Amino acid sequence: MYFHEAETLERGKLEELQVQRLKKTIEQAANSPYYSEVFKKNSIDPSVIKTADDITKLPFTTKDDLRSQYPYGLLTQPLDNFVRLHASSGTTGTPTAILYTQKDLDTWADLMARSMYSVGLRKSDIFQNMSGYGLFTGGLGIHYGAERLGCLTVPAGAGNTKRQIKLIRDFNVTGLHIIPSFALYFAAKVREEGFDPAEMPWKVALIGAEPHTEHTRRKIEELMHIKAYNSYGLSEMNGPGVAFECLEQNGMHVWEDSYIAEIINPETGEHVADGEVGELVMTTLTREGMPIIRYRTRDLTRFIPGECKCGRTSRRIDRIMGRADDMLILKGVNIYPMQIEKIIMGIPEVGQNYLIELIKEGLMDQIRVKVEIKEEYFIEDMRALQGIQKKIAGMLRDEILITPRVELVQHNSIPKSEGKAVRVVDLRDEE
Amino acid sequence: MYFHEAETLERGKLEELQVQRLKKTIEQAANSPYYSEVFKKNSIDPSVIKTADDITKLPFTTKDDLRSQYPYGLLTQPLDNFVRLHASSGTTGTPTAILYTQKDLDTWADLMARSMYSVGLRKSDIFQNMSGYGLFTGGLGIHYGAERLGCLTVPAGAGNTKRQIKLIRDFNVTGLHIIPSFALYFAAKVREEGFDPAEMPWKVALIGAEPHTEHTRRKIEELMHIKAYNSYGLSEMNGPGVAFECLEQNGMHVWEDSYIAEIINPETGEHVADGEVGELVMTTLTREGMPIIRYRTRDLTRFIPGECKCGRTSRRIDRIMGRADDMLILKGVNIYPMQIEKIIMGIPEVGQNYLIELIKEGLMDQIRVKVEIKEEYFIEDMRALQGIQKKIAGMLRDEILITPRVELVQHNSIPKSEGKAVRVVDLRDEE
Ligand SMILES: [Zn+2]
Ligand SMILES: [Zn+2]
Repeated sequence: MYFHEAETLERGKLEELQVQRLKKTIEQAANSPYYSEVFKKNSIDPSVIKTADDITKLPFTTKDDLRSQYPYGLLTQPLDNFVRLHASSGTTGTPTAILYTQKDLDTWADLMARSMYSVGLRKSDIFQNMSGYGLFTGGLGIHYGAERLGCLTVPAGAGNTKRQIKLIRDFNVTGLHIIPSFALYFAAKVREEGFDPAEMPWKVALIGAEPHTEHTRRKIEELMHIKAYNSYGLSEMNGPGVAFECLEQNGMHVWEDSYIAEIINPETGEHVADGEVGELVMTTLTREGMPIIRYRTRDLTRFIPGECKCGRTSRRIDRIMGRADDMLILKGVNIYPMQIEKIIMGIPEVGQNYLIELIKEGLMDQIRVKVEIKEEYFIEDMRALQGIQKKIAGMLRDEILITPRVELVQHNSIPKSEGKAVRVVDLRDEE
Repeated sequence: MYFHEAETLERGKLEELQVQRLKKTIEQAANSPYYSEVFKKNSIDPSVIKTADDITKLPFTTKDDLRSQYPYGLLTQPLDNFVRLHASSGTTGTPTAILYTQKDLDTWADLMARSMYSVGLRKSDIFQNMSGYGLFTGGLGIHYGAERLGCLTVPAGAGNTKRQIKLIRDFNVTGLHIIPSFALYFAAKVREEGFDPAEMPWKVALIGAEPHTEHTRRKIEELMHIKAYNSYGLSEMNGPGVAFECLEQNGMHVWEDSYIAEIINPETGEHVADGEVGELVMTTLTREGMPIIRYRTRDLTRFIPGECKCGRTSRRIDRIMGRADDMLILKGVNIYPMQIEKIIMGIPEVGQNYLIELIKEGLMDQIRVKVEIKEEYFIEDMRALQGIQKKIAGMLRDEILITPRVELVQHNSIPKSEGKAVRVVDLRDEE
């Protein structure tokens, strides 16, 4: 059961469509002050694109480019034709702004509706959007998608937990959009109000607004008694609805009829090998007002090799593993802290916290990972502890291709940092 | 220049249209559990409506009726057909909920677009919606209208004053939706940030979300250097866009092709004489999913007699003068505190505050109005003060048909209450 025929297009046909739309996108983009100049300088016109791989002939667009072109440099049409503006939240420095024509909003709503359909939501669902509205694309983006799908949409917004619970119960809400970090708090609140999450009417939660681990997803699913689906979006590519999990919960399908996704080595700009982690680069294929070409998202992920059981032919990306700016280069290998977190948090003996330290061993750089062990495992049996230590080191080596030092520490011995998930300390100048 | 032909329909034609749509509304409403029963009990079917006046044959619908029918009692269609829910904000007690089909949302967006057009906004305007989104209909209601009109719509939401100012300046925002009480604060903030409101790009503000006085409107216009327009709406009638001022700023045109407005004596339920203040009663004419018939809004206003210079033929209501629940009955006359406030706040010698006291004079009820006089007028010249006192008493008598006692008091001598605009103290049992 699919929402749109593009979801199951045979790969050859899909790439044909991409080529055709990429050519059109170049043609449209050439009407903007920014790309008109970039294309002139690089001798680019639609004819340079013959196959999907030819996208590498186009230059990247960075966040800084968007900033320097604020507010109108990327518009392909008179301002009069635009009906929506979303802007990044910065109050200092230059923000970025994305503008949409009515047609762009329609396309976006269709993509969002398709995304929600792919996780099992239907016209008959009652959908509560528990995300803040306003300039953040997550609010209105999901809202328009839910209405487009035909769900009874409850624009609850953020906050007011008691009222959220009341609405969910009164209207038998079956679908939620909820921020992952709020979901854990919310589950506790539901219990506090005297309700059993297992008896709440909900079935499906969209939790993609923040990068989170598989571990967090499973915890949300357990605590809320819900199926939680990850997704990927960013305002530069409209907002939510760029890539979405299907019922398989094994990677997020990029809607490749509307976006071209590439994964590059952030240092060299070259495509990485299939399945390797790198920086996600995205190109709009169906945005008329403000097309963006080869946008450097700074988000780290990888293509998941192979085909998805769901039957969709579009490629899947893995959950976001951090920011390209977080990348560590050690012994010539690119390492992303989220790779380490992912492994550590999947080990049952590990507690809440960990710390990544960059150290010197002689002249060589090395990684030391301090890992809190749950109280019940932190016993005097040295051999058992050594076993855990070895296991962690081995699993990390398989993931990051380097064998790190692993140090097991007691529960609560690592100082808790506020909010930030990735914790890296550079001690190379100190030791 | 009008947005829709219905705005200038000849009255006879307009009433024909109302009759036809009222019949259809009765027919649709009969599909809801609630009205099906009410109509059966009162032997009502579309044939009882022959002229527009026959609406008085239909029973009222009250807020309590909506509460008792929560959540689905007024729906004329399967829940599946609805795509939006707005609910009153109560967390305790039974809330009320309004549900919309896609067609209802379209109708609403059209009415909102028409409303914005009537105060001079056009497709070429840049419109910043500075209202909270979510379950409150003011946010999404105005948002959809602005997009429908084709404005570049900035969903700024509430709060974050600095960013609001930055967006307004960066994008040359020409139209605002801003809550009256926030507008006064915002004007000060703009100055604080070092900008002159007179040099801001804005031209038009919609300020209808809260009842406010003409004095407040003029103050907003002066401080912000903007034209500020009042409007009327309530979620039971979709939300904003029920009645809207035109450029004349002299009363709000009810969009009578979509709503029938009546003004009744809240005690008797009978229509008041033309121009007299009473409770506004509203009927939807173009809502298919959840029509509401003769809804007792509890809001007090009057029809403004005569024709509007703008050429629109629809009747105008005056700004909301309070709640029917605030009504005082004195010497057989209905008095609304807002009538008194309106007069007092229009007198230049009067300061910030006043108090209405109900007292006994012998066996008779009487009103005493305590009025703070600005410092510069509160001088020792008894004759000048008596002159002011007499003037106030005379103006009040003309408005409320009773001559009240007027007591002039010093600046800041009346204790300030938080937020609430209407202040009435009943001392009849004490004196
Ligand atoms: Zn799949
Ligand atoms: Zn007029």
